[in-house]
Amino acid sequence: MAHGNAVVVIGLGRFGRALALELVGEDTEVLGIDRDAELVQSLSGSLTHVVRADSTKEEILRQLAVHEFDRAVVAIGTDLEASILTASLLVSFGIQDVWAKAVSEAHGRILTQLGVHHVVYPEHDMGQRVAHLVRGRMLDYIEFEDDFAMVKTTPPTDIIGERLADSAVRSRYGVTVVAIKRPGEGFTYATPETVVGSEDTLIVAGRTQKTERFSDLR
Amino acid sequence: MAHGNAVVVIGLGRFGRALALELVGEDTEVLGIDRDAELVQSLSGSLTHVVRADSTKEEILRQLAVHEFDRAVVAIGTDLEASILTASLLVSFGIQDVWAKAVSEAHGRILTQLGVHHVVYPEHDMGQRVAHLVRGRMLDYIEFEDDFAMVKTTPPTDIIGERLADSAVRSRYGVTVVAIKRPGEGFTYATPETVVGSEDTLIVAGRTQKTERFSDLR
Amino acid sequence: MAHGNAVVVIGLGRFGRALALELVGEDTEVLGIDRDAELVQSLSGSLTHVVRADSTKEEILRQLAVHEFDRAVVAIGTDLEASILTASLLVSFGIQDVWAKAVSEAHGRILTQLGVHHVVYPEHDMGQRVAHLVRGRMLDYIEFEDDFAMVKTTPPTDIIGERLADSAVRSRYGVTVVAIKRPGEGFTYATPETVVGSEDTLIVAGRTQKTERFSDLR
Amino acid sequence: MAHGNAVVVIGLGRFGRALALELVGEDTEVLGIDRDAELVQSLSGSLTHVVRADSTKEEILRQLAVHEFDRAVVAIGTDLEASILTASLLVSFGIQDVWAKAVSEAHGRILTQLGVHHVVYPEHDMGQRVAHLVRGRMLDYIEFEDDFAMVKTTPPTDIIGERLADSAVRSRYGVTVVAIKRPGEGFTYATPETVVGSEDTLIVAGRTQKTERFSDLR
Amino acid sequence: MAHGNAVVVIGLGRFGRALALELVGEDTEVLGIDRDAELVQSLSGSLTHVVRADSTKEEILRQLAVHEFDRAVVAIGTDLEASILTASLLVSFGIQDVWAKAVSEAHGRILTQLGVHHVVYPEHDMGQRVAHLVRGRMLDYIEFEDDFAMVKTTPPTDIIGERLADSAVRSRYGVTVVAIKRPGEGFTYATPETVVGSEDTLIVAGRTQKTERFSDLR
Amino acid sequence: MAHGNAVVVIGLGRFGRALALELVGEDTEVLGIDRDAELVQSLSGSLTHVVRADSTKEEILRQLAVHEFDRAVVAIGTDLEASILTASLLVSFGIQDVWAKAVSEAHGRILTQLGVHHVVYPEHDMGQRVAHLVRGRMLDYIEFEDDFAMVKTTPPTDIIGERLADSAVRSRYGVTVVAIKRPGEGFTYATPETVVGSEDTLIVAGRTQKTERFSDLR
Amino acid sequence: MAHGNAVVVIGLGRFGRALALELVGEDTEVLGIDRDAELVQSLSGSLTHVVRADSTKEEILRQLAVHEFDRAVVAIGTDLEASILTASLLVSFGIQDVWAKAVSEAHGRILTQLGVHHVVYPEHDMGQRVAHLVRGRMLDYIEFEDDFAMVKTTPPTDIIGERLADSAVRSRYGVTVVAIKRPGEGFTYATPETVVGSEDTLIVAGRTQKTERFSDLR
Amino acid sequence: MAHGNAVVVIGLGRFGRALALELVGEDTEVLGIDRDAELVQSLSGSLTHVVRADSTKEEILRQLAVHEFDRAVVAIGTDLEASILTASLLVSFGIQDVWAKAVSEAHGRILTQLGVHHVVYPEHDMGQRVAHLVRGRMLDYIEFEDDFAMVKTTPPTDIIGERLADSAVRSRYGVTVVAIKRPGEGFTYATPETVVGSEDTLIVAGRTQKTERFSDLR
Repeated sequence: MAHGNAVVVIGLGRFGRALALELVGEDTEVLGIDRDAELVQSLSGSLTHVVRADSTKEEILRQLAVHEFDRAVVAIGTDLEASILTASLLVSFGIQDVWAKAVSEAHGRILTQLGVHHVVYPEHDMGQRVAHLVRGRMLDYIEFEDDFAMVKTTPPTDIIGERLADSAVRSRYGVTVVAIKRPGEGFTYATPETVVGSEDTLIVAGRTQKTERFSDLR
Repeated sequence: MAHGNAVVVIGLGRFGRALALELVGEDTEVLGIDRDAELVQSLSGSLTHVVRADSTKEEILRQLAVHEFDRAVVAIGTDLEASILTASLLVSFGIQDVWAKAVSEAHGRILTQLGVHHVVYPEHDMGQRVAHLVRGRMLDYIEFEDDFAMVKTTPPTDIIGERLADSAVRSRYGVTVVAIKRPGEGFTYATPETVVGSEDTLIVAGRTQKTERFSDLR
Repeated sequence: MAHGNAVVVIGLGRFGRALALELVGEDTEVLGIDRDAELVQSLSGSLTHVVRADSTKEEILRQLAVHEFDRAVVAIGTDLEASILTASLLVSFGIQDVWAKAVSEAHGRILTQLGVHHVVYPEHDMGQRVAHLVRGRMLDYIEFEDDFAMVKTTPPTDIIGERLADSAVRSRYGVTVVAIKRPGEGFTYATPETVVGSEDTLIVAGRTQKTERFSDLR
Repeated sequence: MAHGNAVVVIGLGRFGRALALELVGEDTEVLGIDRDAELVQSLSGSLTHVVRADSTKEEILRQLAVHEFDRAVVAIGTDLEASILTASLLVSFGIQDVWAKAVSEAHGRILTQLGVHHVVYPEHDMGQRVAHLVRGRMLDYIEFEDDFAMVKTTPPTDIIGERLADSAVRSRYGVTVVAIKRPGEGFTYATPETVVGSEDTLIVAGRTQKTERFSDLR
Repeated sequence: MAHGNAVVVIGLGRFGRALALELVGEDTEVLGIDRDAELVQSLSGSLTHVVRADSTKEEILRQLAVHEFDRAVVAIGTDLEASILTASLLVSFGIQDVWAKAVSEAHGRILTQLGVHHVVYPEHDMGQRVAHLVRGRMLDYIEFEDDFAMVKTTPPTDIIGERLADSAVRSRYGVTVVAIKRPGEGFTYATPETVVGSEDTLIVAGRTQKTERFSDLR
Repeated sequence: MAHGNAVVVIGLGRFGRALALELVGEDTEVLGIDRDAELVQSLSGSLTHVVRADSTKEEILRQLAVHEFDRAVVAIGTDLEASILTASLLVSFGIQDVWAKAVSEAHGRILTQLGVHHVVYPEHDMGQRVAHLVRGRMLDYIEFEDDFAMVKTTPPTDIIGERLADSAVRSRYGVTVVAIKRPGEGFTYATPETVVGSEDTLIVAGRTQKTERFSDLR
Repeated sequence: MAHGNAVVVIGLGRFGRALALELVGEDTEVLGIDRDAELVQSLSGSLTHVVRADSTKEEILRQLAVHEFDRAVVAIGTDLEASILTASLLVSFGIQDVWAKAVSEAHGRILTQLGVHHVVYPEHDMGQRVAHLVRGRMLDYIEFEDDFAMVKTTPPTDIIGERLADSAVRSRYGVTVVAIKRPGEGFTYATPETVVGSEDTLIVAGRTQKTERFSDLR
Repeated sequence: MAHGNAVVVIGLGRFGRALALELVGEDTEVLGIDRDAELVQSLSGSLTHVVRADSTKEEILRQLAVHEFDRAVVAIGTDLEASILTASLLVSFGIQDVWAKAVSEAHGRILTQLGVHHVVYPEHDMGQRVAHLVRGRMLDYIEFEDDFAMVKTTPPTDIIGERLADSAVRSRYGVTVVAIKRPGEGFTYATPETVVGSEDTLIVAGRTQKTERFSDLR
């Protein structure tokens, strides 16, 4: 395994597993580590390497050459102490990019103080994102930055059958149609010439509130 | 509380809390329910209503008028049994839109069999999404559909200083620049006239692999 | 094992064991599954097949060919989660007749929502049945439908020594004597010619209350 | 409460509760006792008296006048020790009819050695009974004695439309039709003149195997 | 092992072990049974046979031929359930003399109701006996029957140097000197000629209170 | 309470309670101490004083004036640490007579090393004593010293009807008849003139083995 | 309380309590914080302020004005997570001097990475120090730096009765006598004129091994 | 192993391990004993002998020849009972020098009552010592006796650049400079000729308060 290009993922629960499998699916080598024998076995055919080990012991991580990786993810979820001990070791190894999942603000603050480079809050972030789906009529949603979101939604009646150039979506609704998906097809970029069908799905971009209002139209 | 427009959120852990607060921030009334007194108290000033109650008992949910809501979210995380018992009751009430968080595939299958309308897997979904950030150089990432993603990234050197129309991003890289953010400003829609600066941040859309390759350019 | 005619019984506690042994006694093939090694071993000579396995895992049930059976019983008692996970899998396999034991109303409602075909409440049903034995003087009791019961009882004094045709049991007491058992013999059908002896045991049918009153006579 | 006619039910789990409610429904006074406050409260409007108390203490049972009852049921399920301690006290009080639920053969043997008059095995008995429903096509089943059963079933094709006298059920199938239920009506006694309809439900009596074979006919 | 003369001791805690070792010291064969491997091993050289086994299972006791013994002791202390299950089995075997240790009155009552022949209360009996030693000046004490005790004590000053015949112990103190022990020797029967020395130890018999008063004299 | 004459009993389990009640029955004042509220309450009418307190804290014992007593009993059974902490304090107070119950040899050694004056082993001592009852035909037994025992037993046939002087019990059997009990009476001292009846009960003294053999005679 | 001069001590176990009491004894104001109510109460008269609080919550520490202190000690011992959460908060407050007790190397590394200024290992340091006392004949020992120790010891025979100037301790033994203590007096500085008595105690300084050898002399 | 010169260390937690390793570093043979297999293995190359064993059993200690050692340390920390049982055995063996770590005053009192020769309180002693470092500006501190301390500190400005003879440290500050350390060197004895540099570190001796004041000077 060329450690420089590979990623070590410590903790193979739902978050770590999904992350590791996605990486492998994108042709990135992954060393997976977890304390749970059953988890490790169930992934043994799917990751480049997967090892049952206690990641809180320095000598064990060194035996696994973890200190030679450039990128590492601490995906340990419920055991705060193990998460902190492991992150502390990865930072002390001088690994270039250390990611860690935090389960609370305090956890995140400690990880940051220890020198972890990227702290991720899955439950919190997904909670925020799902709020928009629960509330509105949109099909998917992401806010890339404060007040700039993208939503997947169905088109409002009054733009159906018209060219985007004619329906003046941007001036009337303050959003831009980025992409469009015909039934049975994939997404393609929207152009001024695109005519919106009633069965189509749209991706629109714009200020958060504008995208929400647009997706609430019928 | 007008139950028709409001949302009941059961389970106020990290996922449920973030979801509930985001809803309130968007002017949606929220009834929050949790078994934990401390959690309930800490949110008492923030949600429209927040109650300490055992959501697995039908008579208790009825006393709280939960059966009159149109939208409900089961955000219970670790107690599989409570999640299932609660979801079963919400479905039996005939609530129009029942959302539930699942912590495993089996959990998700049961929720679906019970008749829950939307099942969410925060740990799994965030794991997949973060994989792209760990692996590549992009700043944020979302795949709206199979093989159609949006990424936030820094611009490659060879398009800096050029109008988008001239840099032929779409034909050379297979992606579309959707929005651009100047240092210290917010995102605005990209137009053919937009000139990319070296400190700018871009949002580009395209096939998953194309967006990843684009963000890997320097 | 011909899966079509056989029954898979999951959970070999008191209920499941009695059920499985009764089936075997009636020449029905049974595959018994339980997580408890001791239970499994103690039944290894008595059931057609008996396996120690975790029935909440799809891959394990498939390895055991459970999805090829036409009839399955979930006899798991105390572990609500395992009962629900297992039932969920059996339903998802499309098994024709899924039976499951419920330990509470909520449990029963969930099993029904999941699509289980027959839900059984042993403790509740036996409680009701024993109530009649505790209260009255009858020896056994079953209510086949609302307000139509059969009871096993001793005969009241005033019909002893008479032909049933003469004692006018139906008109006087509103019940019918269905069968009669002489000391040391088995039950035989009662006929109008049958003469009731003081040591005989009767089975009588009729409206619930009538059968109870009849059995209270001395 | 006239103790002589009333029943004390100790243990208000599923078995005890169903038993107690059935007794009350038949106009028998019931004193219910359980250690669980919630259970006791939920039954406070339904039983004649219901008390939260520790039934393993002699002085407590005496304060409740339990020693003055003629009939008592120990419906304690999972706590073997409490079941035995309670039964031991009831026997030492000289109560005339002590019933107790057993959860295993050993439990049953001890209850019998202590002098309990009637020992009931709900899980075991229901397991046996349900076996017949799982296996065959019958709708309900009871075996009153070894080799003499009653079953509720649908009629086989070849007796439909005929008078029972003509269809010779007893000689052909070795069973007797005891009662019959027309769609939308209750059960009534079958007579030789009864004509069986295709939507009717029958109760038939006979040797166990004969009743099973009869119910398997189509 | 000749089962007729031997004793089976079940439970090898402090009480059972002392009992078993005393029996072996008196040339009685002992089969010791306990669930604890360490206890069993530590006694493997000291008892005739010692086996690690679960005494609550009938088939296990039968394999060990326990049902062929004439005398059995249930010395199980803290596990009430195991004590009762085991005693129940021994009684059902028809063993002639079943002894059992009780840890409370309720425990003792149950053992008696089960048919155990001799119930022993070590903690209670020793508590009573030690009370007399704590309170008075006697060296040892036993009450064989209500109001008839034997005590070991030092002699009061005013009988020292006198023949027992002269000191009139019986008429003055209401007790009889049964035996006497000179320093460095064993006990011998006291006779009227015996002269009591100041270093001697006496055993005296009499009404409980008289023996206590005598031992309080200086 | 005059502390000098009174006894403090710490630990009111079966041993401590029996000891304390026996003392009170003999007109000795007792201060009982235990951590268990229920135990304390149940004895509140029976002991001179009874207090719920943690006996391992010096300041608490001092508040209860325990340091002013002359006699103290540590009857704590199962909590070795509490037994040792309490005994250590009593010794450090300089109490004249400290008794303590030991549950093992190691426990006893520690109590002795701490300076406890009298260590008692109820389970062990009763085990030894009961061994003689189990084995032989005697009714009660005590060994006051190595090889000098007293037993309560029924008389052998060949001394019945004779004066003790004539039956030569001492020379023939090596034991002395100390006391005799006629049916329905209490024990009285045996004299040479005493004639033994077949229904009488004897207490005999002698070398351990001789007393056992005597009691085995029929 | 003038926060600038005062010290906040979090965790009042044996280490924290001794530390806090020593500070108060030296006229330093101390705010003591612990989660244990009993500990807090027992110190309520001894420290300047002592509060029962959960130190892992930022808002609670702020309410207690902990962020205004210049010096803080995290003396939490066994709860690694609480130690780390608390230390993380103190560092984030920008407190000038944060001390923390570590129970292992990993714990110490994390505290250092978090930015704690002084990490103390009491068990480890005392273990090392006591080793010298166990091994040699010295009375007390400290190593101020690698290979420079001070020991308290008794004088070897051959310097007794001599002036230090004459006994040439430094040249013969490689150590310097720093101070001397006459029986019944305190320590005073040693001078060349000091004459060493056989009952005196010395403090000598020097290379570690030299001081040990000197103290081993007789 | 020559037991006379060697030390047995029981309990290899942080205190015991540091103690044992320090002894080995000083060429003393050490037998280490602990119940924890992992701890024992991790020290197997470092101590003379290291064994996994239960030190509370006399026969086990004898098999290890512990009774033949002259010096033993009970370094068991959290398990009070094991500490006491072990110490009790070592004292009963007559070992010449028994050291034990105490975790509380009560623990220490019991160890002393058992006859342990040296009782050590690491947490308490280090707490006191660290108090002086927290409070003042000194670098290290030890109080050898009441009111006679040594401190390591930086020199105050007004003695820098002067010969100690000239700066009159003893008369002005009441302390004696014992040793001095130049940057990059070790400590050497201070003499009247020594000139103090601004980067030097000093060890000074004197009355506790005087040394503290001296180290507070700038």
